[in-house]
Amino acid sequence: MFDASIGALILAGGKGTRLYSTRPKVLQTILETPLLEYVYARFDPLFGKRVWTIVGFGHEALETAFPHAKERFILQSPQRGTGHALQVAWPTIRNSGVSHLVVANGDTPFVSEQALEDLVNLGLEENADIAFLSIVMDDPGSYGRVVRKSNGSVSAIVEARDFERMDPGDEIHEVNSGIYLLRVDAVNKLLPLLTDDNAQQELYITQLVDLACSTGMRVVAIEQGDGPELFGINTPQELVDAENRLCPHIVQDWIDQGVIIRNREVVRIGPKVELAPGVDITGPCEIYGHSVLGPGTRVHSHCRIENSQLNGCQVHSFSHIHNAQVGKDCSVGPYARLRPGTVLDRDVRVGNFVEIKKGVMGEGSKASHLTYIGDAVIGKGVNIGAGTITCNYDGTNKHMTHIGDGSFIGSNTAMVAPVRIGRDVLVGAGTVVTKDVPDESLCIARAKQKNLKR
Amino acid sequence: MFDASIGALILAGGKGTRLYSTRPKVLQTILETPLLEYVYARFDPLFGKRVWTIVGFGHEALETAFPHAKERFILQSPQRGTGHALQVAWPTIRNSGVSHLVVANGDTPFVSEQALEDLVNLGLEENADIAFLSIVMDDPGSYGRVVRKSNGSVSAIVEARDFERMDPGDEIHEVNSGIYLLRVDAVNKLLPLLTDDNAQQELYITQLVDLACSTGMRVVAIEQGDGPELFGINTPQELVDAENRLCPHIVQDWIDQGVIIRNREVVRIGPKVELAPGVDITGPCEIYGHSVLGPGTRVHSHCRIENSQLNGCQVHSFSHIHNAQVGKDCSVGPYARLRPGTVLDRDVRVGNFVEIKKGVMGEGSKASHLTYIGDAVIGKGVNIGAGTITCNYDGTNKHMTHIGDGSFIGSNTAMVAPVRIGRDVLVGAGTVVTKDVPDESLCIARAKQKNLKR
Amino acid sequence: MFDASIGALILAGGKGTRLYSTRPKVLQTILETPLLEYVYARFDPLFGKRVWTIVGFGHEALETAFPHAKERFILQSPQRGTGHALQVAWPTIRNSGVSHLVVANGDTPFVSEQALEDLVNLGLEENADIAFLSIVMDDPGSYGRVVRKSNGSVSAIVEARDFERMDPGDEIHEVNSGIYLLRVDAVNKLLPLLTDDNAQQELYITQLVDLACSTGMRVVAIEQGDGPELFGINTPQELVDAENRLCPHIVQDWIDQGVIIRNREVVRIGPKVELAPGVDITGPCEIYGHSVLGPGTRVHSHCRIENSQLNGCQVHSFSHIHNAQVGKDCSVGPYARLRPGTVLDRDVRVGNFVEIKKGVMGEGSKASHLTYIGDAVIGKGVNIGAGTITCNYDGTNKHMTHIGDGSFIGSNTAMVAPVRIGRDVLVGAGTVVTKDVPDESLCIARAKQKNLKR
Repeated sequence: MFDASIGALILAGGKGTRLYSTRPKVLQTILETPLLEYVYARFDPLFGKRVWTIVGFGHEALETAFPHAKERFILQSPQRGTGHALQVAWPTIRNSGVSHLVVANGDTPFVSEQALEDLVNLGLEENADIAFLSIVMDDPGSYGRVVRKSNGSVSAIVEARDFERMDPGDEIHEVNSGIYLLRVDAVNKLLPLLTDDNAQQELYITQLVDLACSTGMRVVAIEQGDGPELFGINTPQELVDAENRLCPHIVQDWIDQGVIIRNREVVRIGPKVELAPGVDITGPCEIYGHSVLGPGTRVHSHCRIENSQLNGCQVHSFSHIHNAQVGKDCSVGPYARLRPGTVLDRDVRVGNFVEIKKGVMGEGSKASHLTYIGDAVIGKGVNIGAGTITCNYDGTNKHMTHIGDGSFIGSNTAMVAPVRIGRDVLVGAGTVVTKDVPDESLCIARAKQKNLKR
Repeated sequence: MFDASIGALILAGGKGTRLYSTRPKVLQTILETPLLEYVYARFDPLFGKRVWTIVGFGHEALETAFPHAKERFILQSPQRGTGHALQVAWPTIRNSGVSHLVVANGDTPFVSEQALEDLVNLGLEENADIAFLSIVMDDPGSYGRVVRKSNGSVSAIVEARDFERMDPGDEIHEVNSGIYLLRVDAVNKLLPLLTDDNAQQELYITQLVDLACSTGMRVVAIEQGDGPELFGINTPQELVDAENRLCPHIVQDWIDQGVIIRNREVVRIGPKVELAPGVDITGPCEIYGHSVLGPGTRVHSHCRIENSQLNGCQVHSFSHIHNAQVGKDCSVGPYARLRPGTVLDRDVRVGNFVEIKKGVMGEGSKASHLTYIGDAVIGKGVNIGAGTITCNYDGTNKHMTHIGDGSFIGSNTAMVAPVRIGRDVLVGAGTVVTKDVPDESLCIARAKQKNLKR
Repeated sequence: MFDASIGALILAGGKGTRLYSTRPKVLQTILETPLLEYVYARFDPLFGKRVWTIVGFGHEALETAFPHAKERFILQSPQRGTGHALQVAWPTIRNSGVSHLVVANGDTPFVSEQALEDLVNLGLEENADIAFLSIVMDDPGSYGRVVRKSNGSVSAIVEARDFERMDPGDEIHEVNSGIYLLRVDAVNKLLPLLTDDNAQQELYITQLVDLACSTGMRVVAIEQGDGPELFGINTPQELVDAENRLCPHIVQDWIDQGVIIRNREVVRIGPKVELAPGVDITGPCEIYGHSVLGPGTRVHSHCRIENSQLNGCQVHSFSHIHNAQVGKDCSVGPYARLRPGTVLDRDVRVGNFVEIKKGVMGEGSKASHLTYIGDAVIGKGVNIGAGTITCNYDGTNKHMTHIGDGSFIGSNTAMVAPVRIGRDVLVGAGTVVTKDVPDESLCIARAKQKNLKR
């Protein structure tokens, strides 16, 4: 971690026009993880609590997504460019007492710790007023070119269109990545000088470099080779390319650590997932979020798992598991849907076309077919028959169903919550349970069968 | 479009022996679209109503598949070769008044507009009696070789096996693609001369070229480079290769137009699909037919969508949607099956293990779990409980169920159609509704619950 | 097949530490087929009943998996290395009367018949006391190097670590594959001389080679080029690599034989599957075990089929079929689960969210929605309504349900087994059937519907 004199400002106010976003661009995801989360994962270990974030478009969604960061959100409204964002943040930055500020876009998920360390360490070493990371590109395209003096220091960043109007000469392949280290005292003098004298009528940070150069400040470009990881995600192509670059690395890393990943080209594993050696996964399959798969877990093809803990169980095909916990020796699916709040103890079986939401099932219990369990606490050794439904919703509120150890719920049973079924109860098939059932009872509600001549 | 003197004849009578078809070969599909549909998509804009089709094997299936074209179907029965097909079609062609006829196989889905324009324009320009498209192949294999005179005009098409018997000499790499432009008056004299003096005892169009050459007519080959798009689909390998060539192009085109397509190698998108910029699709996933996905639509992994309109909704994993319409802000799936005739208004939720067929659901209505809705009209703000079933079939006919606005259908309810449930009705869990229910009623049919000592 | 003087010993006692197995390593699967099954598939045709298997860790699981082989299992307990395994097997081998013994690891699934024939034929021809297959590797890594005399015969196998300590010289690229032919009389003298004077304190077969060389026996290495098929599967990487090498070959072979396999990169077909020409499969999809797909069968995307016979039917997406038989013109799925013991006659329809286990359905019968059929025999032309459940389990035993030809089971019906429903019966929606129903009856059990003012 850098010392307390170094802070960071993440620019996360944009909409992402070329991604046709209806939400903040930095909430666009790679492997179901927002771009900004990748950025925080790099910056937080280096800068600790000295990471501020400029938000603007759709800032409420960002506040919801990043509660840990929102107290250091700075709202830019209206949004008048990156330079304006810096102006809006400036009082906060100055008050914080940092001497230097790293500025980066929230849409650069893969910027490396090494690159940030180079920026800060070399920038400080060179006494730069402004330092920035530069990249060498075969085809610099629309990126701003870094013009250096004969001694290597930077004399200007020339925008692509301006560069093309200049005298013909050798193409410059070094471009600005947009990741800066600013000396606060130096930039303090330049910030008020920014102008919106451009097509978009906005204020840009790149102008700071021009101003610094023209006033004789020390501007340093720290070249980082051709690393694509410094570029932002601006288009669908860049987004899917980034995902396609990252995912195989994650998969290979887990194989190297002893995980068996079959059909690997169609296995998607998020960056925060943890897998134990010997876990066996067959694609197509997705595992996202803070999922943890313990030893002995097997995930068959066509499953989607998110934010769930699987502790040595079998997950059969076509299962959909979200915010759930599954214990050792459980069997889940095929076609099981475990929704948030599902907790399965050891040796539980959840079969096909079964949905569980906020449901706890005790050791050895089973719900094998066509069942909806919502807002329920189910004991040990309970058998839930096919077609069982917890009627947890009365149109206004949700209510709880309790079922005691060792009970047997007959098929096509509806339990109208709130309701409490004791232990060792037998509920007859087709019953609508509306009243509590004492322990060791037979509960039945059934019209008499009549066989008539057709 | 060509002028009215130019017609086209598509040969679609074959079975596709090497594809082991049980239906007409041209009904074999690429991305769930029949080969012949690709051909019509090329020919109809160029030839308008002057496209005739030779049908034979399984012609009824073709009539069903292409109602717009069937009035210009010409039945060849029995089927005695391509030359015979032309003889069968000839009276129709002559009566139509066209002076020139393009003849092509219905199994060449990728023939380009440009190639057809070259054929017609250059053929006319050169006053050809017969013109045909030729291709240059490294390995001409079993294709007929184009033998040209020193002035470049064609002297013969030599079949592969005959070519091999000829004096050794330079291999000829130019082969006949089987796509012809025929001058009607010229061919008129040649058609009766076709013979079935060959192994298959059939009449072939290629013989026309020999006859034309030997009688001094002008035969012109129009070389089209090495384009695989002129070849027919004859084998499983060629079929899957064609699909594998086409699909990535379609996917890339949509990415270029602003669609986010993740896991793209396993996303299959048909040629008639329309996607709005910003639509977000994750593979594995298939989208076929005339599907239209509007802005804001997201399709998660493991979905299959065909001929459906999704207007800014979320489609969760394992959903299967066919001939359905889904409104803005709807949430569908996981494990939702929307069958033909499903219409979901805005903000409808269809959850897991729910099937809807010919069902209309009004704004804000929900069917979240384990439900079958068939032949039903459901109002606004209706809640359909888990395990609800519309009994739409009495063994002979299908009947309708109507549910009014704001009603709440309890779990495990069966509604025996025809039946009409009013607005703001509450149906108790486990009810079998056999009679209409007035507005604002409580409807219940339930045996009394008994709790007995086991 | 080799003559009766040649036997084979498969070493299958290991755990597979680097695969983090909880079961015998040779039960690790490639395309859902255990490694050892591949080995038997190679050895059984060559050696007939003269294949013995050393088992140790988890031998019970192996006995269950390979009943045909278990009478020639030899239990090694405790397990003290490959040389010790040979010592344990030796009495059996000697009693069998074979003169030569092939020894191979059970984790080399792809060893070819040709390589085994080379080993035996060349080994006999050269009068070898010990022969073994060797491989040439660019990077021999940790494998034992084959040191040859100037006349080409083998003087030693030097372990990698020892090799590195030797005088610098040319690297040796030929390594020992671990597949041996042993002359029984020769090895008989050497076996008692094995020592556990090594880090693991185990006895190794490689030491036999050293002993043979040092006592002047004839040791022959039979070089097999760079074939990866001779190596064992030791790590997750090697396991998934092996699967990724095998699967595309299987898929391509079927395409060559006339099967249409779309999205082929994500189609997984096991080695014992049989497919008829013209079968049409779309990936992602898995077909495993002894599955046989007859002419006219189509399998849509997102299906998993294991050990099942499909005789010309349509399998729609998201179907899961295991140990089932499906007749001609049946339609299965989407979302159908056919479990072991399912037998569908001709023209049966099993629709979405339907599970069948040990269920027989007669010609033309249908179960289209949300149904569980377990332990049932259903006649011809039966219609099973949505939400129908066979209550086959009473908490202790499973019981049968019978339904006669032409009956119609209304929706949300529960049939409490054992129960017998006659032919041409109509069961009203919502009925719990607890008693047998005679032929041509109407069966109903229903509380009266009451419509009350809310």
